[in-house]
Amino acid sequence: MLGRLNHVAIAVPDLAAASATYRDTLGAKVGEPQALPEHGVTVVFIDVGNTKIELLEPLGEGSPIVAFLAKSPSGGMHHVCYEVDDILAARDHLKATGARVLGDGNPKIGAHGKPVLFLHPKDFQGTLVELEQV
Amino acid sequence: MLGRLNHVAIAVPDLAAASATYRDTLGAKVGEPQALPEHGVTVVFIDVGNTKIELLEPLGEGSPIVAFLAKSPSGGMHHVCYEVDDILAARDHLKATGARVLGDGNPKIGAHGKPVLFLHPKDFQGTLVELEQV
Repeated sequence: MLGRLNHVAIAVPDLAAASATYRDTLGAKVGEPQALPEHGVTVVFIDVGNTKIELLEPLGEGSPIVAFLAKSPSGGMHHVCYEVDDILAARDHLKATGARVLGDGNPKIGAHGKPVLFLHPKDFQGTLVELEQV
Repeated sequence: MLGRLNHVAIAVPDLAAASATYRDTLGAKVGEPQALPEHGVTVVFIDVGNTKIELLEPLGEGSPIVAFLAKSPSGGMHHVCYEVDDILAARDHLKATGARVLGDGNPKIGAHGKPVLFLHPKDFQGTLVELEQV
């Protein structure tokens, strides 16, 4: 079921500063900021060849990463996103094993315009897992 | 400088249980446990096609992940590892930009038998970064 690692998401308090770190200090290929108000974040994607790093900065009120940054003000690894072929089949398999799907259990459209779901970190060793249908 | 994402490491309190989660719940290709006493961990690699997930369980006294698990008992994302062509050139560039290299600044031999260095999470938005020369 589990496909490729689509991205690792890192929550950051200051997207411009984080982009500069990855570009200038680490010498990475850093994209332009994209505001995603419907997800409450501004994102920057970093192409590392085989996968992507997604930097996330809160956008607007009720951003899903505000609580994370309150706990870890300097930022930190927020989630990993894996690709799946069939997100509804994946969801049904996961639910049958007892894993908890966040929200109402129905896929939403993610940052890449594709259906995504998030799984409860308590069911995955403290790791927030996103699934994206590709 | 920054090359491919070699792996994402996840610290777990129970490697057998975590391996079962990734194999049975997520349907991933889970390897066999490898004890690395010189690193204070037992590791399991999960091949997700384009990169690897590395599950880490403490091994022996003074394991470098004991403090992490004391803070996050159910586990969590521990570090990301990027590949570099020349680890000494990478280190010298990083030091010149003011980034802190952990330990004595000299590469050690990592889980794949290749030279590795760790960078201070405070210089990378709360993310522990490993560099591996490939």
